[in-house]
Amino acid sequence: MSRPKVVVARNLGPDVMPLFNRSDLDVVAWHSETEACGRKWLLENIVGASGVLVMLADKVAGPKLRIVSTMSVGYEHVDLQQLTDRGVRLGYTPDVLTDAVADLSIMLALMAGRNSRETMSVWPSYPWSPFAFCGPQLSANWLHPTRTAGFIGFGRIAQATLARLVPFGFTHCLYTGNPASAPTPERDATLARTLGVESVRRVALAELARESDVVFVLAPGAPSLRHVVDAAFLRGMKKTAVLVNTARGTLVDSDALALALREGWLWGAGIDVVEGEPHVGADHPLVKEPRCVVLPHIGSATTETRLGMATMAAKNLISGVLGDTMPAELSITR
Amino acid sequence: MSRPKVVVARNLGPDVMPLFNRSDLDVVAWHSETEACGRKWLLENIVGASGVLVMLADKVAGPKLRIVSTMSVGYEHVDLQQLTDRGVRLGYTPDVLTDAVADLSIMLALMAGRNSRETMSVWPSYPWSPFAFCGPQLSANWLHPTRTAGFIGFGRIAQATLARLVPFGFTHCLYTGNPASAPTPERDATLARTLGVESVRRVALAELARESDVVFVLAPGAPSLRHVVDAAFLRGMKKTAVLVNTARGTLVDSDALALALREGWLWGAGIDVVEGEPHVGADHPLVKEPRCVVLPHIGSATTETRLGMATMAAKNLISGVLGDTMPAELSITR
Repeated sequence: MSRPKVVVARNLGPDVMPLFNRSDLDVVAWHSETEACGRKWLLENIVGASGVLVMLADKVAGPKLRIVSTMSVGYEHVDLQQLTDRGVRLGYTPDVLTDAVADLSIMLALMAGRNSRETMSVWPSYPWSPFAFCGPQLSANWLHPTRTAGFIGFGRIAQATLARLVPFGFTHCLYTGNPASAPTPERDATLARTLGVESVRRVALAELARESDVVFVLAPGAPSLRHVVDAAFLRGMKKTAVLVNTARGTLVDSDALALALREGWLWGAGIDVVEGEPHVGADHPLVKEPRCVVLPHIGSATTETRLGMATMAAKNLISGVLGDTMPAELSITR
Repeated sequence: MSRPKVVVARNLGPDVMPLFNRSDLDVVAWHSETEACGRKWLLENIVGASGVLVMLADKVAGPKLRIVSTMSVGYEHVDLQQLTDRGVRLGYTPDVLTDAVADLSIMLALMAGRNSRETMSVWPSYPWSPFAFCGPQLSANWLHPTRTAGFIGFGRIAQATLARLVPFGFTHCLYTGNPASAPTPERDATLARTLGVESVRRVALAELARESDVVFVLAPGAPSLRHVVDAAFLRGMKKTAVLVNTARGTLVDSDALALALREGWLWGAGIDVVEGEPHVGADHPLVKEPRCVVLPHIGSATTETRLGMATMAAKNLISGVLGDTMPAELSITR
């Protein structure tokens, strides 16, 4: 029996690629770590392949394909219906990036309140004054002894972010969930008790906007959630609140956010994702807003986490193609 | 009896200045919130004054002066020996800024690891790749299940910063203290238990440099601590560690830090204070280092905290001049 062919659409570096040095697989790997393989190379090489390892931007199909392994926690680049119809199994990389994204969410919440874009560029000519560069304080303080965090989407990353906020004096947590799912008041009460906050409550979007001192967008990039943060939501926020999006750009209406920042509906924003990325120019309305920190989708970009994701994606591919249990396989239920 | 004269060297804004609308004081206040009063105005108006409220940069003396109130937690701009000799009481603003500075310390620790200066300027042309922009992860992770924070100086701000690090997975805390003071192993054990970390230990500088994943400089700006972070310290750090200074610029040797970053002795740095500030030009060696985030001394610059500091400074001045207990008076023991 011939060895199954697998295609690896990116060089995953010297720590991960040796995993593919095995005699039971026929491995075709793209040579470069920094450059994408391109659609043409991928379509040429996918012919006859049983499995493929792809990045978030790659779209692929092949008649013999049985395993797709994506180096990402999101899978909106994958046509799940087609996978189900063809019996293709999907490996992905959940969990391993939770902490890196939660770290970045905290960083952006702080940067959005502390006027980072302005303050990072003021030396050499800085006239100190008592209220220069002052923005709202993230942590609890003498004027605001309670703090409320709002989460649009309340999965693992959101809960890891909430845990980090507790010693900042956060006392209340609001979140929105899939309306079709049953409420979980007992889980919420347990979580509140475990973390040491006064309450964790699922609420409607309008209440979340109205009550939160910081709103974290941490939902999956599903079509039904497109622009869940729209003009109406932003108008409902506190003028001193900040918005953080470390999930998917499509969840936030960019034009509405730019207008909201310009008109002071909220204080500031920190976003790691932008609708339409990577086609984000210097003239993008959010890149131009001084109160908006825009990062280039680096939520999971720490050495340790990306190494973990690449390793997991490689193991998913190898295990899947050889018919073994994948370390992380998506169970497709639709 | 004539009303005591007080000089307020800065306009503290519409929320605080009304505190001085009182018939028992003769108040002379500088008109501007954003511009400093200047030495000439201060020396002219200090004549005959019983009390003065100053900012960090003001130096002042007067023959009748009995009260100096500084809107700062530091007092290295004050000649304590002279105050003692003349029986002048000093009011300052401790505690109220603890959380704002701890917030900023966390922000800078995150920014230093996540290559913020580079990543904030990469749109529009960003070629995604698995390890682009990757730096060391602040939080615990699959490769590094323990994390160690090192504190040079271990007062209120340091302990508030440590508390914030716990849900990031920090397990160990090292600190340096005044060598003349007795060790406090019981206090340290209690603190470790309260915060939920494995250990809190006072150590020598070399061990702190060697073992810490992030080093926070949070000591007072005393002459004896000038350049406590020097080339030897920096050479001793982990290559993946970051340095944060939110205390005083004089504590870190700027030239040594620039060299250390250039040569990769450590990963990155986030500093809110620079030796010689505010004379920090675009050609400053640290401003030029891409791995160094340089902020313009905004540790306490949140709306709530600066309002709290200004209110406390005003109350210190008024109470002191009227012979009452100040909300926060420094006990000068030397």
